[in-house]
Amino acid sequence: MVSPHTAPGAVTVGIDFGTLSGRAVVVRVSDGAELASAVHPYPHGVVDHTLPATGAQLPPDWALQMPADWIEVLKVAVPKAVAAAGVDPRDVIGVATDFTASTVLPTLTDGTPLCDLPEFADRPHAYPKLWKHHAAQGQADRITKVAEERGEAWLARYGGRISSEWEFAKALQLLEEDPELYARTERWVEACDWIVWKLCGTYVRNACVVGYKGIYQDGHHPDREYLAALNPDFADFVADKLDHPIAQLGDRAGGLTAEAAAWTGLPEGIAVAVGNLDAHATVPAAQALDPGQMVAIMGTSTCHVMVSDRLGEVPGMCGVVDGGVVTGMWGYEAGQSGVGDIFGWFVETSVPPEYHQRAAERGIDIHTLLTELAAGQEVGEHGLVALDWHSGNRSVLVDHELSGVVVGQTLATRPEHTYRALLEATAFGTRTIIESFEASGVPVRELVVAGGLLKNKFLMQLYADVCNMPLSTIVSDQGPALGAAIHAAVAAGAYLDVRAAAAAMGGVNSNAYTPDPERARAYDALYAEYQRLHDYFGRGENDVLHRLRAIRRAAVKGK
Amino acid sequence: MVSPHTAPGAVTVGIDFGTLSGRAVVVRVSDGAELASAVHPYPHGVVDHTLPATGAQLPPDWALQMPADWIEVLKVAVPKAVAAAGVDPRDVIGVATDFTASTVLPTLTDGTPLCDLPEFADRPHAYPKLWKHHAAQGQADRITKVAEERGEAWLARYGGRISSEWEFAKALQLLEEDPELYARTERWVEACDWIVWKLCGTYVRNACVVGYKGIYQDGHHPDREYLAALNPDFADFVADKLDHPIAQLGDRAGGLTAEAAAWTGLPEGIAVAVGNLDAHATVPAAQALDPGQMVAIMGTSTCHVMVSDRLGEVPGMCGVVDGGVVTGMWGYEAGQSGVGDIFGWFVETSVPPEYHQRAAERGIDIHTLLTELAAGQEVGEHGLVALDWHSGNRSVLVDHELSGVVVGQTLATRPEHTYRALLEATAFGTRTIIESFEASGVPVRELVVAGGLLKNKFLMQLYADVCNMPLSTIVSDQGPALGAAIHAAVAAGAYLDVRAAAAAMGGVNSNAYTPDPERARAYDALYAEYQRLHDYFGRGENDVLHRLRAIRRAAVKGK
Repeated sequence: MVSPHTAPGAVTVGIDFGTLSGRAVVVRVSDGAELASAVHPYPHGVVDHTLPATGAQLPPDWALQMPADWIEVLKVAVPKAVAAAGVDPRDVIGVATDFTASTVLPTLTDGTPLCDLPEFADRPHAYPKLWKHHAAQGQADRITKVAEERGEAWLARYGGRISSEWEFAKALQLLEEDPELYARTERWVEACDWIVWKLCGTYVRNACVVGYKGIYQDGHHPDREYLAALNPDFADFVADKLDHPIAQLGDRAGGLTAEAAAWTGLPEGIAVAVGNLDAHATVPAAQALDPGQMVAIMGTSTCHVMVSDRLGEVPGMCGVVDGGVVTGMWGYEAGQSGVGDIFGWFVETSVPPEYHQRAAERGIDIHTLLTELAAGQEVGEHGLVALDWHSGNRSVLVDHELSGVVVGQTLATRPEHTYRALLEATAFGTRTIIESFEASGVPVRELVVAGGLLKNKFLMQLYADVCNMPLSTIVSDQGPALGAAIHAAVAAGAYLDVRAAAAAMGGVNSNAYTPDPERARAYDALYAEYQRLHDYFGRGENDVLHRLRAIRRAAVKGK
Repeated sequence: MVSPHTAPGAVTVGIDFGTLSGRAVVVRVSDGAELASAVHPYPHGVVDHTLPATGAQLPPDWALQMPADWIEVLKVAVPKAVAAAGVDPRDVIGVATDFTASTVLPTLTDGTPLCDLPEFADRPHAYPKLWKHHAAQGQADRITKVAEERGEAWLARYGGRISSEWEFAKALQLLEEDPELYARTERWVEACDWIVWKLCGTYVRNACVVGYKGIYQDGHHPDREYLAALNPDFADFVADKLDHPIAQLGDRAGGLTAEAAAWTGLPEGIAVAVGNLDAHATVPAAQALDPGQMVAIMGTSTCHVMVSDRLGEVPGMCGVVDGGVVTGMWGYEAGQSGVGDIFGWFVETSVPPEYHQRAAERGIDIHTLLTELAAGQEVGEHGLVALDWHSGNRSVLVDHELSGVVVGQTLATRPEHTYRALLEATAFGTRTIIESFEASGVPVRELVVAGGLLKNKFLMQLYADVCNMPLSTIVSDQGPALGAAIHAAVAAGAYLDVRAAAAAMGGVNSNAYTPDPERARAYDALYAEYQRLHDYFGRGENDVLHRLRAIRRAAVKGK
């Protein structure tokens, strides 16, 4: 229930920092009504070819961003959204953000990004490394291997593997490739905390990102001996550059500074919540704060987030973090690295002209046409089973060198058959994750779907049938930003905690889809085939996918 | 060398009876020059939906033909070709045919097809069963199983498996499904022998078809006890309906009857050669009569035919027959059930509009465009390996319930990658067959390619590289009909034997393609992956393809 001290027309602003743009949403505190939103694309988008300052070529697998682009979102999208909402800026009582992660940058102690120092503008390592910067794989492999060798207890909290996308791999890459810049790094800061620092002048790390991306477990980062084993010069990384106070999600980080008030047009001094991550912010927006409610944010990829009162060490999960989703609960994260992008790839590369023409004649898009044709098939009628690894496998195999497999095509196979097999493959991938949680003693009883793919009703029913569990859907189509706005309301004191704010401001269509017992049974047979091929191709029985990747790399290199 | 008794302007007519049409070619005896040809489509094509006489629906997997359609080819295509050649019909000294097989029909002792008797016109079993009539699978399975149980020595001559396409399975189906008609069957006649019977009035079976399709080995068909074990009423099948004199390929079956002379406009009494099969007739046309020269007739499917002085029992081959290709040698046959039709399927179902547009803009066909793009890739650059089983597998697995597999697709995979992987998969299939021959003590040293796919130079080079052996190409693009004309010349006495006639009338581009050692080495690595997946999916290690087929069948049935 909203605090009696909160004004009736009070609103908060949630700002979602994505990969290519930032979005501000103005939300009414009393009921979560989304009054208006505005998007601002980052002028530099993803910097993955050349460094803007010099035009120098970046090595493969690099992906950087520009801090000034994020500030532009504050300057452009926020005032625009507030204006569009038709509210008086003085009604805004709080602001909160969510961000991609681990997007991480080297700064001075005052928060100045090293890339903003003229003498470092030509150094790629001075810039924020975007989550999908994949050039630290060697460091990540070593981080995992040394942890295994030393029996580090925290490794199991990350499903047994530390990603190249996270803070330690990226920092170690900085040290080993540009030691001078590493020495000048005073703070190694997640962008989600950096933007809050810019808004309220206070640097505070949040419980979510330190756990999922910063290997923070049971009150500690990895210890000095472990770090020294990675690289003697890395021994003091935590002490010198990382350690800093941590706050819980929904906490107030500080008040909006005069400078940030000027950027955004919001009142100076209003509450700024601590940072958060996009997927995790979505959970309260979908009112999925009970154990067993697995939120799947389904878009080009899928992120699975779930709270539980039980601590389990789930093989292949991304991480389990105390207070990582909501204070007082264990927060789990897992993921599928390719979902919507596999469907998009198929439509772009594998569908003949007459289908495009039919779709155009009917004024529908090609996904809609293929979904319609797929929906006309009985379970198993296509005679196919596919592995959804076209973009690698995040959970539960944590192997980005895997690739896609399609089994069972005949001369009678039509595009709608293969399309459906790919839809199913991603559902089987989700079921594999669910079963991995269950086998580790962490029950899952409901899927709560957010993200762009929930528009596809056939796909939703398919997931319910394949996973044989009820499927609920988020009401908002701006889940992360709404989630941020919910945290802003808590930071502003409008609600006692995130749970109370979510109850008032979030929204879910409960049990929007329920499994059909007959189809669920039929899918069991296909899922059994998926499982067997999953293990055959994914667990080393036949390592052909890795060998093909190596052959391909050598062939391209020899060109 | 042509006989001194042969007139200088002498020609023969070769007639190729295909699945959908018949083609007559007029060939000069002295040098094999193809003077003209004419095609006549069968009015009824393949009868696989309804019986023309009654409109009654045929069961699934049935495929029949109409004998009158074949006679029309004699009446239309032959005079047309002779007229187009500008030769005097009196210069025609002989005629020969080749046919699909096993295309087989029940007749009276005078050769009248039972379907031509008004009282049987409504009985599907009265009609010729085309080679691709696949409704006798149950009988075929029993034929193989009982042979295995009884340790029949002839089974190994057929790679261990008797096809549902052959004479015994189709006859047993007739007995078991229409016993009255079986009882009225006086002769069970291959169409290749029936057409010769119609041309010269003499019924003589040929050494090729009796061996490959009639289980005739070492002078005998399967014995009475074996037949009785299949079905007591089948015990006298061979003695009553099948046994009949056998002649060698190139032998004169008789002289052209007055009736057939009237149909064709050819002189009465000229030599008519004994029947032959399309693939086997092609071998002398390609001058590939030496051991180790494997002729691959590559079209929608591929048929492999080779002569050898050694008898080997090659697992998964279609058959080895004494005199089956040329008198005095063992003739081997193997095959791939899907080749060009897989490429055709891919182009039809899996290539997006912009490729079609690019091809149209350049005035080339889509195969040409994809081949060009495929040719620009290094070996292995696509990161893929495929199994070429979209139409099942004939050799060496003899399993039509298998289906296609593609392994290694990523979001970067383009149609030209998968297209090339499918081209390669068929080459790996051919290499698998070659290695099966070699492992059975039957050496293969050269590929000689005939058929429509030899136009694709990139594909030919790919086969040479994958198989790591020189590849020659037939000169004629009407190989079967030219081969028939060669046999006609021998039957007419213009040459001493088929070998001599082939030397004068056939033609081959020897070593048109030679393997590139570096590419051959690179393909070895991909072939090793193919082999492993071939055995995994094809030899029961994971029977998923069979299970998917069963699931599919049940799903369609439940609709």
